[in-house]
Amino acid sequence: MLNWDHVFATRASRMRASEIRELLKLLDRPEIISFAGGIPDPALFPTSAFEAAYADIFANGQAASALQYSVSEGYLPLRQWLQKELDRLGIACGVDNIFITSGSQQALDYLGKLLLSPRDTALVNWPTYLGALQAFNAYEPTYDQLSFGNRTPDSYRAAADNAGGRVKFAYLSSDFSNPTGQTVTQEERLALLTLADELDVPVIEDAAYQHLRYDGEAIRPILSLDIERHGSIEETRTIYCGSFSKTLAPGLRVGYVVAATPVIRKLVLMKQAADLHSSSINQIAITHVAERHFDQQVAKIKAAYSARRDAMLAALAAHMPAGTSWTEPQGGMFIWVTLPEGLDGTELLARSVETEKVAFVPGQAFFADRSGTNTLRLSFSCANEAMIAEGIKRLGRLIAASLRVAA
Amino acid sequence: MLNWDHVFATRASRMRASEIRELLKLLDRPEIISFAGGIPDPALFPTSAFEAAYADIFANGQAASALQYSVSEGYLPLRQWLQKELDRLGIACGVDNIFITSGSQQALDYLGKLLLSPRDTALVNWPTYLGALQAFNAYEPTYDQLSFGNRTPDSYRAAADNAGGRVKFAYLSSDFSNPTGQTVTQEERLALLTLADELDVPVIEDAAYQHLRYDGEAIRPILSLDIERHGSIEETRTIYCGSFSKTLAPGLRVGYVVAATPVIRKLVLMKQAADLHSSSINQIAITHVAERHFDQQVAKIKAAYSARRDAMLAALAAHMPAGTSWTEPQGGMFIWVTLPEGLDGTELLARSVETEKVAFVPGQAFFADRSGTNTLRLSFSCANEAMIAEGIKRLGRLIAASLRVAA
Repeated sequence: MLNWDHVFATRASRMRASEIRELLKLLDRPEIISFAGGIPDPALFPTSAFEAAYADIFANGQAASALQYSVSEGYLPLRQWLQKELDRLGIACGVDNIFITSGSQQALDYLGKLLLSPRDTALVNWPTYLGALQAFNAYEPTYDQLSFGNRTPDSYRAAADNAGGRVKFAYLSSDFSNPTGQTVTQEERLALLTLADELDVPVIEDAAYQHLRYDGEAIRPILSLDIERHGSIEETRTIYCGSFSKTLAPGLRVGYVVAATPVIRKLVLMKQAADLHSSSINQIAITHVAERHFDQQVAKIKAAYSARRDAMLAALAAHMPAGTSWTEPQGGMFIWVTLPEGLDGTELLARSVETEKVAFVPGQAFFADRSGTNTLRLSFSCANEAMIAEGIKRLGRLIAASLRVAA
Repeated sequence: MLNWDHVFATRASRMRASEIRELLKLLDRPEIISFAGGIPDPALFPTSAFEAAYADIFANGQAASALQYSVSEGYLPLRQWLQKELDRLGIACGVDNIFITSGSQQALDYLGKLLLSPRDTALVNWPTYLGALQAFNAYEPTYDQLSFGNRTPDSYRAAADNAGGRVKFAYLSSDFSNPTGQTVTQEERLALLTLADELDVPVIEDAAYQHLRYDGEAIRPILSLDIERHGSIEETRTIYCGSFSKTLAPGLRVGYVVAATPVIRKLVLMKQAADLHSSSINQIAITHVAERHFDQQVAKIKAAYSARRDAMLAALAAHMPAGTSWTEPQGGMFIWVTLPEGLDGTELLARSVETEKVAFVPGQAFFADRSGTNTLRLSFSCANEAMIAEGIKRLGRLIAASLRVAA
């Protein structure tokens, strides 16, 4: 038998199974109340709209192009629909600034591939989206903590130099981020653009949850602020990553990148070499559903998810012991819980599954430095209000009991 | 404006637009007889089978899973269908040896990512599939010429060492290869396995065209021979890449990798980080069509393409001037033409488009060392017999005229 580890590239050593993910796989059972998932509720999918979309492709003479190879940059009518939708969000761009990916996860992989040489530094929040760390890890970077306003550009440069590379980008989720549910303020967005200007690096804006705002004022995308500051998208440094996974459906794998054309041109070449193009038929189906149902679908899921968020916040207020705190997100799918110091989220999960039949994700996995042991991510997207009330009650009971043991 | 070239990783410098591809885009016009494409004929797609497949997904209660996230390794019923199909081809494996990709192009990208560190050596044929070179280029390898029997393992090792890395794999298309149409003999397959054993490296077997055999005896896949030699797939070093793009339809982006489980496990982790999974709905639709229509669909396209191959071979024999030679493929989509020394395929294309309205792909792009200037790739998959007869007549006339000018 070949010694496979001997032929794998060095980057493969950072591709490891997540213990948490493996554990959570085992928990996908009906008797468990799960706040772990972070996936959309399939009961809210626009199923009949998709059924009509696929039927229409075959009825309306689009089958040959839906089943055939297509261009790497993506289906033009979809990019045209996105151009209009982006304009509504304050992002003025042309179709040549829009590139279709197989979900926004692929956008993160491609941007890591485009920008990172081994030992380069990526600036990320502590905590940040675990999938971004996994995508970037393949390109063997170092991470430094992105913080707004309290570090100088020189301190980032010195740390990157010390790690053997250069700062290559700042990555962040701008609205209702996974995992914390928090939104970056307009002042922080502007400060980040100033920092990026000084470091002369791009900003990767992950906007996967942007459409899921339940209350409060919308904050302009970082790309929109960048366009305003520099006059045109061609002069910007922000690379905006969007997705239909949270609004329409994730199973089709359709996302998009919006950026200055030098970036888009490289991504198109990369895609041609990496998987040719995203599914032709799914891009056509997404276009069909987006053109006819996007706004009403977004309104529908906002109503459902905001009620679940409210239920979870109420249950947390009712059942969490003193010393436990949590975020109050204005949208998205997640609430972030900080336990009293000394409690460990991973240990709590093991006990919670055993005694309370409640699952969540321990927060440590979201920290590039593996700190945050006393944090948890709760998702409210896939549980109904009664399950949320019951699950949080049990979790509060367990945390209170753990505190008594620790004391 | 950001100086993008300054922040791109070094690998990005090898992502360049292909002049030939850009030129061929311009030639997608009805007045041009094109032998350039290399794509399946959409008139042969099993369109009504796909129409029924998508309709059934919605009618039979599969919509929620078709539209939802799914597992990175791929849809289990599809892997079960493939397990049986692979068994028919002489490949005994379990479902855990099968991994679903977004087309076999993605398999090549992932294998480059898994195996190649910068300056490592990939052994490839001169010429080889251009898309493989493009996929591997992102990982900054060196190429060495894979030849059967006339080089020692030490000579490969010394050349790789000289280039600053190690030999990491041998890649080849085993049947009716793109671009030459040629098939690797069983003796060559066995010699390759011996070489790979001696070098202790994997063999990447690109089987994209394997089902399209029009005559002659089928030759067992390299993976099948490897299993026989070593006793079980777990003891093999061959990584087999298959695709539904040439048999059912490319627009769904569904391909697969078959290999020992240490390789599959790494590819699954890589996919989780890179694009989560291939489209759920398309994997279900492909399964539906494969289960019901695979053999009759393959029989249909073999009948159509073999008639076109025969027409092209007859036209070449009738119209090519002395000194021009070509391959006689037993399957696939391509015939490879070698012009008399001194003629240049790229110059010939420019003249051909201008005066004869016939397109093809100059062969040089398929050579890692940019040799092969006097070669052409002709595809017979998308032209009818009359167009083939007329197009080859014009091409023969042009080559004959070019020879007179050169003389």
